[in-house]
Amino acid sequence: MIERGVDYDMHPLNQLMNPTSIAMWGASNNPMKMGTIQLANILETGFRGDVYPIHPTESEVMGVPAFKNVLDVGKPIDLAFMTLPTEVVPQVLDECGRAGIKRAIVISGGFKEAKGDRGKELEREIKEIAGRYGIRFLGPNCVGIVNSLVSLNSTTIPMPPFDGSIGLASQSGAYTAMINPYLRQVGIKICQTISVGNEADIDLADCIDYYAEVPEVKAIGLYVETVRRPREFIRAAREAVKNKPVLAMYVGGTEAGSRSSLSHTGALSGPDEVYDGLFRQAGIIRANDMDEMLDMLWALSCQPAPVGPRMAVITNSGGPGTSLAYHTEKVGLRVPAFSPELVARLDAVTGKLAFVGNPIDLTFDTNMGLFKQLVEIVFDSGEVDGVFLYGLMGGPDFMVNLKKRFPALDQIQADWLANYDSFLEQFAAVPRSYGKPLLVMSFISPSSPSIAHIIDEGVPIYASASRATRAMRTMFDYHNIRENG
Amino acid sequence: MIERGVDYDMHPLNQLMNPTSIAMWGASNNPMKMGTIQLANILETGFRGDVYPIHPTESEVMGVPAFKNVLDVGKPIDLAFMTLPTEVVPQVLDECGRAGIKRAIVISGGFKEAKGDRGKELEREIKEIAGRYGIRFLGPNCVGIVNSLVSLNSTTIPMPPFDGSIGLASQSGAYTAMINPYLRQVGIKICQTISVGNEADIDLADCIDYYAEVPEVKAIGLYVETVRRPREFIRAAREAVKNKPVLAMYVGGTEAGSRSSLSHTGALSGPDEVYDGLFRQAGIIRANDMDEMLDMLWALSCQPAPVGPRMAVITNSGGPGTSLAYHTEKVGLRVPAFSPELVARLDAVTGKLAFVGNPIDLTFDTNMGLFKQLVEIVFDSGEVDGVFLYGLMGGPDFMVNLKKRFPALDQIQADWLANYDSFLEQFAAVPRSYGKPLLVMSFISPSSPSIAHIIDEGVPIYASASRATRAMRTMFDYHNIRENG
Repeated sequence: MIERGVDYDMHPLNQLMNPTSIAMWGASNNPMKMGTIQLANILETGFRGDVYPIHPTESEVMGVPAFKNVLDVGKPIDLAFMTLPTEVVPQVLDECGRAGIKRAIVISGGFKEAKGDRGKELEREIKEIAGRYGIRFLGPNCVGIVNSLVSLNSTTIPMPPFDGSIGLASQSGAYTAMINPYLRQVGIKICQTISVGNEADIDLADCIDYYAEVPEVKAIGLYVETVRRPREFIRAAREAVKNKPVLAMYVGGTEAGSRSSLSHTGALSGPDEVYDGLFRQAGIIRANDMDEMLDMLWALSCQPAPVGPRMAVITNSGGPGTSLAYHTEKVGLRVPAFSPELVARLDAVTGKLAFVGNPIDLTFDTNMGLFKQLVEIVFDSGEVDGVFLYGLMGGPDFMVNLKKRFPALDQIQADWLANYDSFLEQFAAVPRSYGKPLLVMSFISPSSPSIAHIIDEGVPIYASASRATRAMRTMFDYHNIRENG
Repeated sequence: MIERGVDYDMHPLNQLMNPTSIAMWGASNNPMKMGTIQLANILETGFRGDVYPIHPTESEVMGVPAFKNVLDVGKPIDLAFMTLPTEVVPQVLDECGRAGIKRAIVISGGFKEAKGDRGKELEREIKEIAGRYGIRFLGPNCVGIVNSLVSLNSTTIPMPPFDGSIGLASQSGAYTAMINPYLRQVGIKICQTISVGNEADIDLADCIDYYAEVPEVKAIGLYVETVRRPREFIRAAREAVKNKPVLAMYVGGTEAGSRSSLSHTGALSGPDEVYDGLFRQAGIIRANDMDEMLDMLWALSCQPAPVGPRMAVITNSGGPGTSLAYHTEKVGLRVPAFSPELVARLDAVTGKLAFVGNPIDLTFDTNMGLFKQLVEIVFDSGEVDGVFLYGLMGGPDFMVNLKKRFPALDQIQADWLANYDSFLEQFAAVPRSYGKPLLVMSFISPSSPSIAHIIDEGVPIYASASRATRAMRTMFDYHNIRENG
């Protein structure tokens, strides 16, 4: 093994995630082939590097000039990407070595994870070949990478060029690629993902080291069925959490989970308690499931962590407000009653129906400017460390029937939305200016223009009180991890 | 109080939920008024009954003939619906009484839940007036009702005419109306909702009695901040759960939750433990939050409950499969290893890469017909009581980039989708034919045509393993409640 360093410029994943040229095996002019779908996604997502399909018979693949052998390309190649029958991989990897390629992604399955001994043999073989040429590689049995920073999506799933601040590394390809429609649905954006597959070479510890050094990645998430190098894993995470949180979801910890994991990644898992201890030592926060981990990563990647447990709840509706108050306490945070001074300040700006005790319940107020004012007042008071807010208005959805009866509303609405947009920008800037977190609960779709806007400004949106409060709790946990080392 | 019966034909909510004529106060030709938005929604959602706006000056409201006084209408009116300033409500309710109207919905707030004594006085007053005329009413301080069976949506939120099998009753209006975009996003459909507001007359116990007798409602969900008539509440629920499950979300059980609840519904709540006991006595299953309760209600309303804890996991991807296996055990269900006979049957139909131990992992198989066959084989074996499945293909989303390069795919895809549609129908019928539940985990958007289709066929879709397994666990809990009385 070479280059197991943590220096960003030298880290093996740096070149692998940011290639300027890719040689691609497995793509053809047959649209039913996995490699073809991957190449189509690379070509259509806006990747600006060079891509060279390697194909035994085609001279062009989807309009891109193809080469019979990688040695024919005649230009430097940063990354070899192969979606090939298992048996062919060793030979192609050897060709890559001879062509001087130092990074590879092996999508092909059928190695260590497959039934029988042949796959295990082949996996040993490709490790030996890679070692001989100094090739660092991802996989086999993975779905590739996504790097929104260079518009590179090598998976089979089309994705928009994301611009979030989350870095994912996963022993499951589905959780990096197939999950994409869910991410779009909830509004979560991912900066980079790495599907590590069987981890024959590059593993989760490497990914942590790498993400620790990527400035655009603010929070790291791991899907874990096993940890192959516990000591390196703990070292990498302990180093990383000094600057950014590391979360992990682990599902190897029950009898059936462990059985399933063995057939999936060919690795032995351990009981929940062992992994709980390992994560604790590493400063890693454990999430229960992928949706929960993504909720937490979202908050951690774009809002400041609270330095204390005191939360304010601001709402214009009783049910969500009560739910937020309840769940805040259930996760071990607090909803302190405000001081008489703060109550007086709040009373001065709210209407006669409002309750300002914490929760602040405006009952049915739709004056969005008031929300901003209230957040500023409670942050300014020094009495709270974070704010939950319910009641942001969405786009025009709620007026859809009304507009059929009042066509003039189109203009009124356009004016209102224009104003609302500038409000949202100012509103979203408040938490940053106080260095305190604001999490929003809302049922409105993240694809609704106003909600999309506030998401773009770095405020995460949660569809339930338990999800919002759990995310805030995790931020506080991370604050404590960072403080207490 | 009169008519506190549980006979469906006589139940006060029956007439209130199924009016053939509505008199409406508060709607005008000003689109910025809440009553106007409500009327627009009633008119545009397809309600087939008569609607009579009552307005002091307008002769038409949104093109509908209006009346100065309800006494001028001159036709029988089933329901009075009022979105009026608080102080005016008693007088209008008195007019309703004189006009012979026996059901009312009072949207107006500012009653018992408001600060000061005046609201409490007014609430006593409307109760007294209603009692005098034998009017049964919902509210005050509520958002109205939705009844998809008669295409009646009286809330401020536009909704499609839903056709689900869930009945909701809520002490929070937001959880019946504002939550609509979330419901659309996850694919959950609601048959009827009742916002009970301050429960000055009709309360949650009445709603349980009513839903127990509505044949189209298969599962009942309650949002609870307080229970005003515990004995009636328990009696109603115990009766209802003989035929359909009742779930409740309760958030009054912490100090801040209780404080918030007091200002919201004007009611005293109690500690979590007290309500846990109350729900247990009543045969009600408690949910942690609204999103969780909806997940559970979805499964309960459209799939048969499992009669035992033995689950099969069928997947074409390791991560979701392992997650399902892990979470199944975490919620206290089982993922038993299959008998050699069953393994042999499964082996005979799966490919060489597949693992059939439970989970059954097809690795990367996209033959959807195989999924159906596998579900049938495991149900037929008698070795499992329910199935979790991951790996259904969605609509054309995943081909979006590919099609830019291969225009001919449009036709291939159209053919494939046509076949797929008929497969989905057959597939969705399997659980019903065995009387055993099937829950699907998928990241694909419920608005994707294929997923929408399978949802329409009564199979719920969950975006995470923990959500799917929790829903299955709740179904098993309900089976046990029904069995053990």
